[in-house]
Amino acid sequence: MDENEFDNQRENKAVARVIISFLKYEEYALKEIYNLRVKKWASISDRQKDMVPNYTKYLANLKAAIIENGKFFRSVAEYALQSISFEPGEIVQPNDLDMSKTCSLLTQVYREWSAEAISERNCLNSRLVPFLKTLSPPKADILIPGCGTGRLLVDLSRMGYNCEGNEFSYHMLLVSQYMLNAGLLQNQIIIYPFIHCFSHWKKIEDQLSPIKVPDIEAWSSNKGMGSMSICAGSFVDCYGRNQGTKISSHYTFSRRMQLSRAKAENSKDVVVTNFFIDTGSNILDYLDTIGHVLKPGGIWCNFGPLLYHFENDHGVETTYEVNPYSGFQDKINDYTPLMGLELSSDDIISIATNHLDFELIRRESGILCGYGRYAGPESCAMPGYMCHYWILKSNPTNES
Amino acid sequence: MDENEFDNQRENKAVARVIISFLKYEEYALKEIYNLRVKKWASISDRQKDMVPNYTKYLANLKAAIIENGKFFRSVAEYALQSISFEPGEIVQPNDLDMSKTCSLLTQVYREWSAEAISERNCLNSRLVPFLKTLSPPKADILIPGCGTGRLLVDLSRMGYNCEGNEFSYHMLLVSQYMLNAGLLQNQIIIYPFIHCFSHWKKIEDQLSPIKVPDIEAWSSNKGMGSMSICAGSFVDCYGRNQGTKISSHYTFSRRMQLSRAKAENSKDVVVTNFFIDTGSNILDYLDTIGHVLKPGGIWCNFGPLLYHFENDHGVETTYEVNPYSGFQDKINDYTPLMGLELSSDDIISIATNHLDFELIRRESGILCGYGRYAGPESCAMPGYMCHYWILKSNPTNES
Repeated sequence: MDENEFDNQRENKAVARVIISFLKYEEYALKEIYNLRVKKWASISDRQKDMVPNYTKYLANLKAAIIENGKFFRSVAEYALQSISFEPGEIVQPNDLDMSKTCSLLTQVYREWSAEAISERNCLNSRLVPFLKTLSPPKADILIPGCGTGRLLVDLSRMGYNCEGNEFSYHMLLVSQYMLNAGLLQNQIIIYPFIHCFSHWKKIEDQLSPIKVPDIEAWSSNKGMGSMSICAGSFVDCYGRNQGTKISSHYTFSRRMQLSRAKAENSKDVVVTNFFIDTGSNILDYLDTIGHVLKPGGIWCNFGPLLYHFENDHGVETTYEVNPYSGFQDKINDYTPLMGLELSSDDIISIATNHLDFELIRRESGILCGYGRYAGPESCAMPGYMCHYWILKSNPTNES
Repeated sequence: MDENEFDNQRENKAVARVIISFLKYEEYALKEIYNLRVKKWASISDRQKDMVPNYTKYLANLKAAIIENGKFFRSVAEYALQSISFEPGEIVQPNDLDMSKTCSLLTQVYREWSAEAISERNCLNSRLVPFLKTLSPPKADILIPGCGTGRLLVDLSRMGYNCEGNEFSYHMLLVSQYMLNAGLLQNQIIIYPFIHCFSHWKKIEDQLSPIKVPDIEAWSSNKGMGSMSICAGSFVDCYGRNQGTKISSHYTFSRRMQLSRAKAENSKDVVVTNFFIDTGSNILDYLDTIGHVLKPGGIWCNFGPLLYHFENDHGVETTYEVNPYSGFQDKINDYTPLMGLELSSDDIISIATNHLDFELIRRESGILCGYGRYAGPESCAMPGYMCHYWILKSNPTNES
């Protein structure tokens, strides 16, 4: 089995596991959020039951909402199965983490593809779009690492930009495929994105709000529309430097990835990171990769909080350097902690301007933005994140 | 061994475990948050190290802050050991949950006892205090379930009210004992409450902010000051109804507790729940207990979010009813889920007014309030919770 075949088989297994998690959503949600509440209800005294006369009706509505969400996930799975097939040996059962990632896709789809969540998307768009329009000459090629289910790709390509997304999560990738390519009509699908959150409600009916998606027909192209594609894999692996980056679980040394990285150098006019830079275990690798992929004079636009995903992760990985000519391993660090290197926004700006030859163009801090927050009247949902926004210009003195 | 002796021995073991967790804080924090970051730093390439020239100094400051926090916890432990002693057999080593509760006490102490966090405390105080002053005849006896480390007790007793706190957590109880009784001078202690959070910083120095506590000398009494005491145990166990409440891990049937509950009936003028009503596995028990403890015409003031602590808890307990005369167990529910019954604020108000004979006096929703949030300039910390505030009057028609 050669390197590519091995990669494909590993990828197939991972995709199969996510598809199965979609098919199992309904069973899982009934078991984990519905059945337990039915049982709790049954356990309280008749006197207390009388105090909450609508609770059994509420539970029935909760069950109906789970079943509707299950239909959505089955459609996504069936669409994926049109282009992928598995050997029985490739099937690995999803674990609790897979299932909880599947549940959280509901708020992701709400955030990216509903009319209701437009104010969340506009936190970035209202800043980025006017800025892009001021650029002269216009910047054509945009890279969006961590593109999720692809909405920002669509919005920017409709403005004429050529957009390349990059995404590591198969959960996100399979949903993006469906949302972008399955020919969905406007408001064709109803989901109940808030049913997995039982806290912070003023009215319990709001938890059961149906949301129609998509608000736009992503597949319908228009004149002057830019190109659109998504590359699967980790940002550093697909676009990073071939030298000086440590091999890790997110950075490999196959010939295929080396080629991808060589091709990526100086290839983009703009990199947009949207709720992305806090997702890695080594943010310096992200900064290096952004510098590597941008053309001289290219633009890095960042929006999002600094909620470091690995801050409390007690996991470890092995990292090492590889001599690109001999292939020998060097400076091996067994048990490299995943936590650590949680830089502040001042640190990041300072590294970009002092060490990576960026120039600061704009900066804003403390922008409150929800992420899949229920936005109805009198919402008491958690307000969201205090986001950072900046525009940096790469290597401006070498600009052609 | 009689019932009381058994209770005392179990309590001693629990207290010992918390005291040991205080004594081990420094060792734990060095291992869990400092050493891992030193190791991560050592693992990155020299080129990346050069990008963050201040990181080694930052790590040294982090270590110094841990050591200072360790001194605070040792003082609390030493103060507790003046009044408690253990047999070696009573010592149970703290687990990771104990240790993480100990770490979170730092933000609790910051919230309750620093000048910097006054705006958090004022979210409730600025509403409650003027309201209490309007009451005629004045209400004297106030109960504060979930009183934490005791600050609200002090603030209200200084206004002349007789305040009784109630707290279930030995972590909180031991710290409240220290803050209230150890004779601390204003600003005597320096803690570093934010060092366990590595996300959301604009300036990394802010994470290492020293905070002086206490901002007031709690032990110094003044003329006209009300009484102050704290009762240890669960709210339902200490103050609930003797009939119709299901036995659970938070509601027992010892003679001592039956007596405590009988004494509690119609005993209080005011119950103040501050970030409390979402902490139980059955909120209806809390509502019943508040109704039970208030005199006719008594006031329930609530402030806080509805962040149900057991929403995602997959634990179970056994619940059953007991015939108070025969002592027989009835309606046994093995494996009662801890999750469930997460009522909305509309539900709670409706139950109180329709089933528990309360009258709604005031209500406000969506009040943004932090909980131990870093409040310095340009803070990008999570904004906090959307809080609910209401005043309900108990059984007004029977008011004497």
